[in-house]
Amino acid sequence: MDSQQFRDFGKAAIDLVADYIDNIRTRDVLPSVEPGYLVDSLPENAPEQPEEWQEVIKDFTELILPGTTHWTSPRFHAFFPSGSSYASIVGNILADGLGVIGFSWLASPACTELEVVTMNWLGKLLGLPEEFLNCSPGRGGGVIQGSASEATLVGLLVSKDKAVRRLTKINPSLDEAEIKNKLVAYTSDQCNSSVEKAGSLGSMRMRLLKADSDGRLRGATLKKAFDEDIAQGLIPCYVVANLGTTGICSFDPLYELGPICNEYNAWLHVDAAYAGSAFICPEYRHLMKGIEYVDSFDFNPHKWMNVNFDCSAMWVKDSSELVKAFDIQRIYLDDIKTDTKIPDYRHWQMPLGRRFRAMKLWTVLRIYGAEGLRKHIRNHINLAQYFTKLVRNDDRFIVEPEPLMGLVCFRLKGGDKITKKLLDNLVKSKKLYMVAATYRGRYIIRFAVCSRMIVKEDIDVSWSFIKQEADVLCNGIQGKTKIAALEHIETVTICEKSK
Amino acid sequence: MDSQQFRDFGKAAIDLVADYIDNIRTRDVLPSVEPGYLVDSLPENAPEQPEEWQEVIKDFTELILPGTTHWTSPRFHAFFPSGSSYASIVGNILADGLGVIGFSWLASPACTELEVVTMNWLGKLLGLPEEFLNCSPGRGGGVIQGSASEATLVGLLVSKDKAVRRLTKINPSLDEAEIKNKLVAYTSDQCNSSVEKAGSLGSMRMRLLKADSDGRLRGATLKKAFDEDIAQGLIPCYVVANLGTTGICSFDPLYELGPICNEYNAWLHVDAAYAGSAFICPEYRHLMKGIEYVDSFDFNPHKWMNVNFDCSAMWVKDSSELVKAFDIQRIYLDDIKTDTKIPDYRHWQMPLGRRFRAMKLWTVLRIYGAEGLRKHIRNHINLAQYFTKLVRNDDRFIVEPEPLMGLVCFRLKGGDKITKKLLDNLVKSKKLYMVAATYRGRYIIRFAVCSRMIVKEDIDVSWSFIKQEADVLCNGIQGKTKIAALEHIETVTICEKSK
Repeated sequence: MDSQQFRDFGKAAIDLVADYIDNIRTRDVLPSVEPGYLVDSLPENAPEQPEEWQEVIKDFTELILPGTTHWTSPRFHAFFPSGSSYASIVGNILADGLGVIGFSWLASPACTELEVVTMNWLGKLLGLPEEFLNCSPGRGGGVIQGSASEATLVGLLVSKDKAVRRLTKINPSLDEAEIKNKLVAYTSDQCNSSVEKAGSLGSMRMRLLKADSDGRLRGATLKKAFDEDIAQGLIPCYVVANLGTTGICSFDPLYELGPICNEYNAWLHVDAAYAGSAFICPEYRHLMKGIEYVDSFDFNPHKWMNVNFDCSAMWVKDSSELVKAFDIQRIYLDDIKTDTKIPDYRHWQMPLGRRFRAMKLWTVLRIYGAEGLRKHIRNHINLAQYFTKLVRNDDRFIVEPEPLMGLVCFRLKGGDKITKKLLDNLVKSKKLYMVAATYRGRYIIRFAVCSRMIVKEDIDVSWSFIKQEADVLCNGIQGKTKIAALEHIETVTICEKSK
Repeated sequence: MDSQQFRDFGKAAIDLVADYIDNIRTRDVLPSVEPGYLVDSLPENAPEQPEEWQEVIKDFTELILPGTTHWTSPRFHAFFPSGSSYASIVGNILADGLGVIGFSWLASPACTELEVVTMNWLGKLLGLPEEFLNCSPGRGGGVIQGSASEATLVGLLVSKDKAVRRLTKINPSLDEAEIKNKLVAYTSDQCNSSVEKAGSLGSMRMRLLKADSDGRLRGATLKKAFDEDIAQGLIPCYVVANLGTTGICSFDPLYELGPICNEYNAWLHVDAAYAGSAFICPEYRHLMKGIEYVDSFDFNPHKWMNVNFDCSAMWVKDSSELVKAFDIQRIYLDDIKTDTKIPDYRHWQMPLGRRFRAMKLWTVLRIYGAEGLRKHIRNHINLAQYFTKLVRNDDRFIVEPEPLMGLVCFRLKGGDKITKKLLDNLVKSKKLYMVAATYRGRYIIRFAVCSRMIVKEDIDVSWSFIKQEADVLCNGIQGKTKIAALEHIETVTICEKSK
């Protein structure tokens, strides 16, 4: 393919994407395909000879699109948003066009420095304390990781390394392996699967502490766990606080957890994967009260800030801890740079290679501007509140817990089984995509406002699907007695399997 | 930004990239900027209001490009190639346009299934044994990881989990932590930094065994290390064999290491990050003789196969080992799929999130075809041989070790100091980018054929720069006595710091 063909192919892809987004509402959000549909449709072998780009576009349209779940659709209410925007797509074109790998400054100065700049910009937008920023005098700084999963694991590994260094300094006769074996990580039982996985990947026992009835990990619970473990000869090392849990978007109180972590020398990491974006709006910053106690903070611009996956923004107060844990030297990686304020980002992350991810963050920040991004966040939260009203106006439904951010959880008063049936039927219809969670032992449906194009009328459409399906289901089980009876029987069985 | 503006912005970016590549030879490969150049040039804060896309393009051209190291330039001979191609860039546009996250089948069927298909295609192209492929009857399969670093760490973590399960099954009274503390990983002292880092990240002691004088980890060395460690009560667990080391592109003999690993129940992982691409050409498959003993195999299409970072292709013989190690359940991740031949890829990797990386692999495989990719590999190897001849025709130089693949290592007979000076001057000139390595205690310059556009005339140009710089340096130190004296004095000091 020569550059002229690329111009044609690339521009056709741009138009295809633009057409796709323009017409996103005409498609069912979920595809009507069975497992194996694509494996069975495509050839068993790669083509031997080059193919024309028109063939690729044709197969993309005829085979890939019909098997795609449309995350950008205003009917997509599952999980949390997957960031995507025109600005981000073009940022990636520019980054891919350069094709640089930025493991040292010299390997591409712009790649490293644009990350420094955009992470300073972003940290300021969020109102993070100065000490997290590269532009402040200390050792703080931001780095783009691939995912919140990765950031949580990075935090865990660094906390482990730091604990070992601290304890062997106090008592040099201690055995390193023995220390490691005594270290404990803590988080709430509401944490994302990736947090639990970090404990397993990083070989540190991790306690999922019981959250309170609002899904928040409380200070007293953490302190009790610390003291129990210390009494058993264990060493509290790492705590992951969740700001905006995946299940119900609850916020752990940093102002309670932070002082305890600091007192016990435990590294406090914040996983604000989804909700962190909201802190660009000052009115939500009270939810990160206590941020000054934190050692590392991570959120995903690739969720709610219109940046395409992968762009997970992580800040640390003391980047030298990362470097101590992750620095492995090789002669071929020698750099000419001596300015210590410019990071060697390969020591801030697990892999050696890193691409120019700051580019898409930069294009998004510039094309939207801070005001544009705040508008986007506020629009989602307003629409969630609007949806809440719609549900609450229908007395067959209960909305709980009290919605925060762009997530609304609800259930039918009829109980778990009928609520689950409602969700199953909606997913089967392909018209809406939502997923389940549990709250206070009950099965609930999560309705997340996700699409960046979503408007009030979309919420009306989504609600009308839910209402219609509820009409069909509830038809025949009128009357409070029946509902109560159903509720009593059916709650237990379904929630048993979930946490 | 509306979709019409996106069409304009996107197409402008396509043209910009095409123009950039078309004119890549007019730029110095290394930028003339000082550390901090971009931090000092950009505003301290993100813009408050949205900006026009033309402003972004302008700043990209005026600020980013001048600070970029041009990895696609035919004057780029550092490290190994960073994959990039028109086909791959467009593949990413399509993937970003969809913006899906593929952690379960339902989250986007096409995302999971295209990965199955392309990894089968690719595995067949490489001539991997059938048992590594999803399309064969067993539990084998391929998955796209973010980097070879990640794949090495995944292999290590899975081997650890498997060893613990195996040993506690034999003797249930064993303590899990105690087993973990006894596990040992092995690789050669020629390994990439990422391999050594995997041991540190995965909390497993890792021995860097001495390679032979050709940079190969030999079976006898490995067996001796196993036996020594077992005698000390330790447990051999994980071995990383390197096919194509970063320093000198040496190949560990799998046919020697494999039977030993199998006998001792150690997981054998292959890191073929760069050189793995060459196995699509049957004439190089002898370098992976013994592949049938291997448990996991990884190479980077994002290095030598024109796929943009990140696309690291990993195959395992038994994917159930990955799932056992990495499976963490949550109710919101429930899937409707019951077909066990379609993988839940989130259990095959460390993070939860994953984007549609198979798309760019698919577009590359189709736009190039197998023949196009073989031609690309063979072109690079032929050009490396051509460069070797040029260097060997100049009796001031020595080429060693014997070049393999697209890497040629050479030095001045004048010794380490003058060789290092030659490299430093060339890098300072910004005209060529190469990095150093060591071979048999001597400082050598690595000349990697990297650009996908590179032709014979480019090699002539690169060589002419090297020759000219050598002329300047060697002028005045004619005579064999002087060279020998210089060599004797200077070898020691420089190589001390390197491995």
